[in-house]
Amino acid sequence: MAESWATFGVDLHVDVARPGVGPRRGLTDALREAVRGGRLAPGTRLPSSRSLAADLGIARNTVADAYADLVAEGWLTARQGSGTRVAERAVPVPASAARPARSLRGPAYDLVPGTPDLASFPRAAWLKASRRALAAAPDDALGYGDPRGRVELRTALAGYLARARGVRADPEHILICSGFVHGLMLLGAVLRQRGARTLAVESYGLDVHWDLIDRAGLASAPLPFDERGTRTDELPSTGAGQGGAVGAVLLTPAHQFPMGVPLQPDRRAAVVDWARRTGGLILEDDYDGEFRYDRQPVGALQGLDPDRVVYFGTASKSLAPGLRLGWLALPPDLAPEVIAAKGGADWSCGVLDQLTLAEFLTSGAYDRHVRASRLRYRRRRDQLVSALAARAPSVTATGIAAGFHAVLRLPPCTEQSVVRAAAWHGLAVHGLTSYRHPAATPAPLDALVVGYGTPSDRGWPRALEALCGALP
Amino acid sequence: MAESWATFGVDLHVDVARPGVGPRRGLTDALREAVRGGRLAPGTRLPSSRSLAADLGIARNTVADAYADLVAEGWLTARQGSGTRVAERAVPVPASAARPARSLRGPAYDLVPGTPDLASFPRAAWLKASRRALAAAPDDALGYGDPRGRVELRTALAGYLARARGVRADPEHILICSGFVHGLMLLGAVLRQRGARTLAVESYGLDVHWDLIDRAGLASAPLPFDERGTRTDELPSTGAGQGGAVGAVLLTPAHQFPMGVPLQPDRRAAVVDWARRTGGLILEDDYDGEFRYDRQPVGALQGLDPDRVVYFGTASKSLAPGLRLGWLALPPDLAPEVIAAKGGADWSCGVLDQLTLAEFLTSGAYDRHVRASRLRYRRRRDQLVSALAARAPSVTATGIAAGFHAVLRLPPCTEQSVVRAAAWHGLAVHGLTSYRHPAATPAPLDALVVGYGTPSDRGWPRALEALCGALP
Repeated sequence: MAESWATFGVDLHVDVARPGVGPRRGLTDALREAVRGGRLAPGTRLPSSRSLAADLGIARNTVADAYADLVAEGWLTARQGSGTRVAERAVPVPASAARPARSLRGPAYDLVPGTPDLASFPRAAWLKASRRALAAAPDDALGYGDPRGRVELRTALAGYLARARGVRADPEHILICSGFVHGLMLLGAVLRQRGARTLAVESYGLDVHWDLIDRAGLASAPLPFDERGTRTDELPSTGAGQGGAVGAVLLTPAHQFPMGVPLQPDRRAAVVDWARRTGGLILEDDYDGEFRYDRQPVGALQGLDPDRVVYFGTASKSLAPGLRLGWLALPPDLAPEVIAAKGGADWSCGVLDQLTLAEFLTSGAYDRHVRASRLRYRRRRDQLVSALAARAPSVTATGIAAGFHAVLRLPPCTEQSVVRAAAWHGLAVHGLTSYRHPAATPAPLDALVVGYGTPSDRGWPRALEALCGALP
Repeated sequence: MAESWATFGVDLHVDVARPGVGPRRGLTDALREAVRGGRLAPGTRLPSSRSLAADLGIARNTVADAYADLVAEGWLTARQGSGTRVAERAVPVPASAARPARSLRGPAYDLVPGTPDLASFPRAAWLKASRRALAAAPDDALGYGDPRGRVELRTALAGYLARARGVRADPEHILICSGFVHGLMLLGAVLRQRGARTLAVESYGLDVHWDLIDRAGLASAPLPFDERGTRTDELPSTGAGQGGAVGAVLLTPAHQFPMGVPLQPDRRAAVVDWARRTGGLILEDDYDGEFRYDRQPVGALQGLDPDRVVYFGTASKSLAPGLRLGWLALPPDLAPEVIAAKGGADWSCGVLDQLTLAEFLTSGAYDRHVRASRLRYRRRRDQLVSALAARAPSVTATGIAAGFHAVLRLPPCTEQSVVRAAAWHGLAVHGLTSYRHPAATPAPLDALVVGYGTPSDRGWPRALEALCGALP
């Protein structure tokens, strides 16, 4: 506290109170020092001389003179209509701030699954919904809110999920979260509180989910997998729910990630039977349920038993991950614990995006976007299948009836070399090996997991070309 | 899985594949059942007959006929320009969905501190910034992003905090979070990992923060408090940082919450000295630093030692809590751990609000809003002080040089009866007792904590009237 701070308005703290120096000189020196030291960044607009003078209790001309001095010295610029600003390049910007966000250039083409085509995000429609939603919002929507999220969005989702996914849920038992990972964090904490020790998972999935389960203090135990999907009939042998502890299983029933098969009816029945018999819980990750291309749509498992299934949905695949919006439909008797787990820790989702998504859903804009996206991805899928048939006949695409990724089966022992060849072609693509649970029992398969939704429409043909060039 | 599902497009799952029934009848029955069962909610707009027919692979007329049947039966409505919709009141809405969000009416007047005047949220300016930000955003801003948050916002904050609060931070070490609570959660986890066992706090504060510290596995130890603020010179006696464990202290240096005094220069020096000597960390909660009304502004403590202070800022007081946006300026050597703690668990803030706030800051709209709010709250503070002098001379307001709450000292042993009297007047207001740490040593004081920023401009005069009516 060696400095003696004085001020001209609470927006700017500079040392102007120097003994033996008049206000003009004091202000000029203080501003120069603030610019030189980087505390006033290049481009910053200064207050008008009128308001600064009022804040300081000095004459307006004194401020105007101080500004003029600094313009003359090159520290500030003054232009008609844009006010007085700190000159660009007046000071050296700290090295790290000047660096671009990514210092390494990414790959030229990206077919890593999990991200939709961001170039097709419906910006204009979203803004329109945003304007309408903000105009309609009551003032108290902007305050600290219900940990479940805004009632407008929960109500819109209850209607949408019922009609589009066969989910049966009351808005009271829907909870808005910032995406699947946030939802899984909450469920992990609640399961641990209920005494669970193991969460059964699928043989193929995402390591970030397994890590999260691990950090929640639970073991992840993979269920066997065959060509008909995950062997839910093997649940009793995983240890989930044994020894009196509550059991739980995490599944992607509509479109196994990444293998792409739907869970077969008998295996759906088996997992629901298990949950009813043991008091267990099913966590249903319905990440891309909107995108299905054949005539055998797969409704959500949740509809079979809303008391035993926690349904996880997300806007990350249907709209954009950057929205950070997901939702849970909770069994009524579990809802209070999950809401408490969220409410106790944070209220993480901005209300403006929640209100906008509610408007987007009820106005029909969401359906329109999903339909347009479905056509886009279906077209790309068809192009992928044709290209493979023509240029890489030894490679077969599976799991292609839905979503926006495919599994390309490769000849034995070629996965690693194909991923390396792709990298040489400037193409980012993942091998299936990285999606296999370390304790999984099925024999490893050589395959690529190709996210054909990731590129823009413009980038897609070249990404496909690069892929074909890397395949055997 | 007894049902055999068929579909007309993946947006709607209904059983139309019934043997021996033509497509018109099948569709009509299936739709009627979906409406009756609540799976198609009242007001839902149905797809156009053209697109539904295309999805189903049946004639458009068949769909149009099915719709006409259901309009005739009263299940659907058709209006020029708004398409075909599920009729309002076609089905009983589940009881809880029809219930208003709050079944209990709140108090008529609200002077609970912590929420700014939400009616003055700059909706038009925010939307304008939102439009500009979304137009300028690169596509990949909408994807999974940097766990620190968008670089545009971190850069804008580095400039703003330097100039307005004297904070010295590189955008690389700023982290966007969903508010103070989220930030404290992250720091709690990191402190625990570093072996901390105790977090020193102030004698007065918020119980939700103490609970959070407790859940992070840390003890909260209150520092003594006197008329010159928190006794940081007593830090060595709290046990924070003893026995080789890292020590930390949580403070509100600019405007003690709720007492309202700034931390005095010698006590600022004492806490920084302690942190340097012991390798401890200072968590600086700068919740309302923008709002100061006297000529002795209080810069952030962080500027004294950016290597030992974690600065917490928030948009919850300057704009609205519903945005769920806060920020941390992190000591460089602590940043990787905090970023890892956030990145591992979730990426919780929507990018659209982040980009909008960045635009709001760089365009000067943030400063304009803060200046307007400062005038508003200052005017209310002056009205509060005058009203007390005229109507309740036994009550003195303290902590009024900043922020938008005041502490009203009451005659001894009257706090409880005044809070009860206020409730009778329809006024929600908190006694100081609820902000006192259970282990605090200062003698309890009788006082009210009055949030004069909470009402709207329209509601404020009546809230003030109700307050005066409840005071002794």
